[in-house]
Amino acid sequence: MEAAEFRRRGKEMVDLIADYLENIEQRPVYPDVEPGYLRSLIPEEAPEEPDTYEDVVKDIERVIMPGVTHWHSPYFYAYFPTANSFPAMLADMLSGAIGCIGFSWGTASEATLVALLAARSRAVRMILASDPQRPETGITSKLVAYSSDQAHCSVERAGMIAGVRMKKIPTEQSDKYAVQGETLRRMIQEDKAAGLIPFYFCATLGTTPSCAFDHITELGPICNAEKIWMHIDAAYAGSSFICPEFRPLLNGIEFADSFNFNPHKWLLVNFDCSTMWVRKRSDLIGAFKMDPLYLKHDHQESGRYFYTDNSLFRSLKMWFVFRMYGLKGLQDYIRKHVELAKEFESLVRADQRFEISADVVLGLVCFRLKGSNEVNETLLKRINNGRKIHLVPCQLSGQFVLRFAVCARTTESRHIREAWRLITQLAEEVMQELPH
Amino acid sequence: MEAAEFRRRGKEMVDLIADYLENIEQRPVYPDVEPGYLRSLIPEEAPEEPDTYEDVVKDIERVIMPGVTHWHSPYFYAYFPTANSFPAMLADMLSGAIGCIGFSWGTASEATLVALLAARSRAVRMILASDPQRPETGITSKLVAYSSDQAHCSVERAGMIAGVRMKKIPTEQSDKYAVQGETLRRMIQEDKAAGLIPFYFCATLGTTPSCAFDHITELGPICNAEKIWMHIDAAYAGSSFICPEFRPLLNGIEFADSFNFNPHKWLLVNFDCSTMWVRKRSDLIGAFKMDPLYLKHDHQESGRYFYTDNSLFRSLKMWFVFRMYGLKGLQDYIRKHVELAKEFESLVRADQRFEISADVVLGLVCFRLKGSNEVNETLLKRINNGRKIHLVPCQLSGQFVLRFAVCARTTESRHIREAWRLITQLAEEVMQELPH
Repeated sequence: MEAAEFRRRGKEMVDLIADYLENIEQRPVYPDVEPGYLRSLIPEEAPEEPDTYEDVVKDIERVIMPGVTHWHSPYFYAYFPTANSFPAMLADMLSGAIGCIGFSWGTASEATLVALLAARSRAVRMILASDPQRPETGITSKLVAYSSDQAHCSVERAGMIAGVRMKKIPTEQSDKYAVQGETLRRMIQEDKAAGLIPFYFCATLGTTPSCAFDHITELGPICNAEKIWMHIDAAYAGSSFICPEFRPLLNGIEFADSFNFNPHKWLLVNFDCSTMWVRKRSDLIGAFKMDPLYLKHDHQESGRYFYTDNSLFRSLKMWFVFRMYGLKGLQDYIRKHVELAKEFESLVRADQRFEISADVVLGLVCFRLKGSNEVNETLLKRINNGRKIHLVPCQLSGQFVLRFAVCARTTESRHIREAWRLITQLAEEVMQELPH
Repeated sequence: MEAAEFRRRGKEMVDLIADYLENIEQRPVYPDVEPGYLRSLIPEEAPEEPDTYEDVVKDIERVIMPGVTHWHSPYFYAYFPTANSFPAMLADMLSGAIGCIGFSWGTASEATLVALLAARSRAVRMILASDPQRPETGITSKLVAYSSDQAHCSVERAGMIAGVRMKKIPTEQSDKYAVQGETLRRMIQEDKAAGLIPFYFCATLGTTPSCAFDHITELGPICNAEKIWMHIDAAYAGSSFICPEFRPLLNGIEFADSFNFNPHKWLLVNFDCSTMWVRKRSDLIGAFKMDPLYLKHDHQESGRYFYTDNSLFRSLKMWFVFRMYGLKGLQDYIRKHVELAKEFESLVRADQRFEISADVVLGLVCFRLKGSNEVNETLLKRINNGRKIHLVPCQLSGQFVLRFAVCARTTESRHIREAWRLITQLAEEVMQELPH
């Protein structure tokens, strides 16, 4: 396919995409296929001679779509949103065409890991400075990192990768599942008394299970005093801080060593797009410095990082989105999702059979049927089997809880009401069948 | 921007992309800007109200293009190729629209790290099985990993991330910069005698500096006997193995524990696209297992991995490319690049002032002016300052060497000849000015 044909096929693809997104509601949101369904639909090997483009396009509906979870359907309420917008798609088309290599790009899980490694390197350096004879491996084996028991599983995995102890700090329902300063302080004291070296704390603003916010105004000063690196993971909630009314949720940021959020979650920029801020750049660069000749460039000595070959082109989509929506458009978008979540919360609260399981701060509503875990598990299974709407669960204080996250760009009040109608209808069925 | 406008803008973007790629030769391949050039061209803050789309498009030439290194220009010969093709772009448009989250995607550097972590976990498990009382941190501090002194810098970085010793195995020009079995065997014996635990070897097929191939038929049996995990990094060369005549370069693969190559380098699939194969899946899964409720799914018990929500949608572009080119088209593409490299090699060999610095096996030619490093450094600087073609250097046996990698999809013999004309012309100037 050369440029002339691409002009034609590209325009057809643009229409196909517009058709797909305009009619996405009519598709079952969640696929009804078994793992491996693809195997019988595609040949064992790549074709010897080219297929026709028409055949490839035909197979989008035959092969691909049956396995798709439609994350952009207004009936999708699982996990957290993944962004999608027309300007971002246009930019991605261009980024793909320019096709530069971005060397410094990652998502929130990588940011957590990168911050942990920088913290480990800083801790080892500080200890060696005061005790140069101490063997480095002996230091690593004494290091201890902390995060909330509500933190994303990638935080625990970062600890495994880095080969350091990662301790979970217990949280309570009465504290709204936020890490308390007093708890962290006590754990640090106990660990120091046991000969360990606390060096890293990953705070979460907007946890995955319930969108809880750790008290960083309390936690930050403790970390600073103890020379513990405080990383803030605001993967989901970070986007909301562009609205003044949500900005106070970020108070305490001044104590952080690093901060990350994912515009690809809630800021209308397609996956992947994750932004990381670091207080002291040299802490990061020092931990990863590599210097092969084939990566040298003229501006190295200046200590300035040459971004043009890097994230610039993959961030095109951010730029398109910021410009096409404007701050106001983006704020409206965030506020609308929060309003839709509040609307759903009101519907739940108005029904005596249900309860709200955590404060609704942004676009996530945690709720459940009053009653056993079993009845809630059955309800969720029934909801997802219906394939009209899609939700995932979480566990809060031992309870099985349903998470209703407003995700799609096109979700409207009527979708929320329809979802609630469906949930209550299935709940009725389940309650008739099961003791609760 | 809603679907109707996207239909119009998308089609304009398709034309813009086609125009860009059809006329890419007319642009300076390498940007003539200083780091930070963007700062004065863009506002300090995102706009309060939306910009017009026309303004955004105007800024592509004003703001973006001046900073672009045109990786797809037929005058680009630096690093290694990064893939780009029209079918892949079409697929990426669709992938972007479907916008599912791929949880298991990475590039070769990540594959190296992932393999290293799996190997570390396997090694610790095996040692604990025979000596359950041994403290785990004591084991990690004794582990030792190996790679060639020609391996990519990301291998060394993987060792830093995992917190394990990584030793570089010396290579020689007389061995074509390949790791020899005897050298690895000796290092293992010495390390074991010193109480260390060898556990991981990263072999490279097609090194970055000179496209050297480690002798995995010799190295594999040594690793297997010593229970050392052998990972093979074939990031660039891997694509060539679809041609029977290059397939023997892969002999010894039967001894590997894991293998990786990047279709986004040389197989016409846009960045990023990296494929990893692991002998024993449980070694990998065991090292990273995380089990939060919000990621549970119905098929977990079957031990089968549900790919539909994962790499499938990001691999759409691979699928489009395989189908639109066919195996034959892809083989032709690889062969054409190798031929172009051979053509360049002949031009170099026919000129007494130059020498070839390493065997030309695939699409990379390492060459230099006979003479000092200084004269070659000056020549390269002159070449890149001209901005007509772009090359990067490497170091081989202490010599400063120029790397000429055939990269762009549209490179033809005439581009090669033109590049050579330019290089010899600049060489003449440099040799008149400098002693050599």
